Amino acid sequence: MYSGRYRLLGLAAFQGKPIQAFEITGSALDPAAQLTQSVLTVKSLLSPLSREQVKVVRCLGLNYSDHAAEANIAKPDFPILFLKPVTTLIGPNAPIVIPRAAQPPEEHLPDYEVELTIVIGKAAKNVSEADALDYVLGYTGANDVSFRKHQMAVSQWGFSKGFDNTNPIGPCIVSANAIPDPQIIPLKAVVNGQTLQDGSTSDQIFNVRQTVAFLSQGTTLEPGTIILTGTPKGVGFVRKPPIYLKHGDEVRVSLGNGIGTLVNPVVEEESAPKL
Amino acid sequence: MYSGRYRLLGLAAFQGKPIQAFEITGSALDPAAQLTQSVLTVKSLLSPLSREQVKVVRCLGLNYSDHAAEANIAKPDFPILFLKPVTTLIGPNAPIVIPRAAQPPEEHLPDYEVELTIVIGKAAKNVSEADALDYVLGYTGANDVSFRKHQMAVSQWGFSKGFDNTNPIGPCIVSANAIPDPQIIPLKAVVNGQTLQDGSTSDQIFNVRQTVAFLSQGTTLEPGTIILTGTPKGVGFVRKPPIYLKHGDEVRVSLGNGIGTLVNPVVEEESAPKL
Repeated sequence: MYSGRYRLLGLAAFQGKPIQAFEITGSALDPAAQLTQSVLTVKSLLSPLSREQVKVVRCLGLNYSDHAAEANIAKPDFPILFLKPVTTLIGPNAPIVIPRAAQPPEEHLPDYEVELTIVIGKAAKNVSEADALDYVLGYTGANDVSFRKHQMAVSQWGFSKGFDNTNPIGPCIVSANAIPDPQIIPLKAVVNGQTLQDGSTSDQIFNVRQTVAFLSQGTTLEPGTIILTGTPKGVGFVRKPPIYLKHGDEVRVSLGNGIGTLVNPVVEEESAPKL
Repeated sequence: MYSGRYRLLGLAAFQGKPIQAFEITGSALDPAAQLTQSVLTVKSLLSPLSREQVKVVRCLGLNYSDHAAEANIAKPDFPILFLKPVTTLIGPNAPIVIPRAAQPPEEHLPDYEVELTIVIGKAAKNVSEADALDYVLGYTGANDVSFRKHQMAVSQWGFSKGFDNTNPIGPCIVSANAIPDPQIIPLKAVVNGQTLQDGSTSDQIFNVRQTVAFLSQGTTLEPGTIILTGTPKGVGFVRKPPIYLKHGDEVRVSLGNGIGTLVNPVVEEESAPKL
């Protein structure tokens, strides 16, 4: 069972259901060790949150200074919020599915995005920045896989970010008590062994306190809400040449402070009727 | 109970729960009569779908030729999809709430949008346009109240369209069997007795078949999914001078073919801590 100095506090009573436990073989649970492969030899890791618990996925776009710069887009004045359905969510080791429908898979231009993910533990509405962390149950990781073809083709991202089984979350929820400062968490993305993102939440434009407070204005963030807080520089579509995910790839996104590493293979969806 | 020639087919088994019944006092249930006040004298109308049934709200932006023209924006090449949380949803007669937090209510620039709403009855994924209507349980109405201040301030609409209690749906779900052609439905919005939108679904850029087929590509549209299909011309923010909703207003959105009229008062949220 999960053990060590990063405890999963208060999770037993979360929505009346226990959070899944983890079999982790790594002995060292310090932040540096979490970024190695050693903690991930067990294949039975499960998503720490079910689709029923999450209800809807909230995500920020363009929330890192270095990512805004590489995308050549001005820093936003307010958090850029978009939503995904929970049918996007998968857990550790589950395949990221490139949809085949409508057009050939390679034309979707799938891209990786490692993101710190806030898990809301109690209903938050109109909360102040000073109180915002009181509503945070803990933190986990996510890979906000993005399909650039449609993302670039239309103004809103509901379609391009909404495909089934494209958003790994996990592997651990680390209690907010164990991460008093969420703005110093290292995060990286590794594709087929090559490190492509290697950043820190210190570069976030809107920090966790500001994000929770802002998103709660006029809107209830229900328990189980997850908020993906944007990705640092290094994504595939701005590289020269660009790097896109393809069938057979392996993507690892790692976050420090005990959150751990999500490992997911990439597969193409079975054939489906063309429109 | 609801009666007349528009029957609610197949709803008893919908997700194992009955759809709420309606007490409608109007005697005539022909499409023209639905656009009058006579069917709305009963105050006990309830939302035809619960938040638990809907799970997430899907909406199209800029899906009417005349609305794209008045907004001076080119017709989109693909459906513009964005999502809202179910905490936005309210039923007939419930107040539309202008959030007070973060800034004074009048600065949110709240605007009305009447929309034909598709209700999905069975899971749809990768369906063709030819088969799309087989997945439609029926049609209802919605008022996609939009807060233009934040909609114009950031690229994605998750925040500006996501406030609690801002999206009336209903009052009736009319079976797809009873509306063989959803592209000839009249729809209008009336604020304080003044008709401000008066259009037809014949002006949709992506029709119902195209919308369901497109949105199902790579994405499962679960039973209970609602899809708001965009609004015709006449919204408040493009008017000269602009018209915005304010505390004390009454908004009516009406759709023909038996769907009926949603009547909702507009109120300001109680005071909340400023950021």
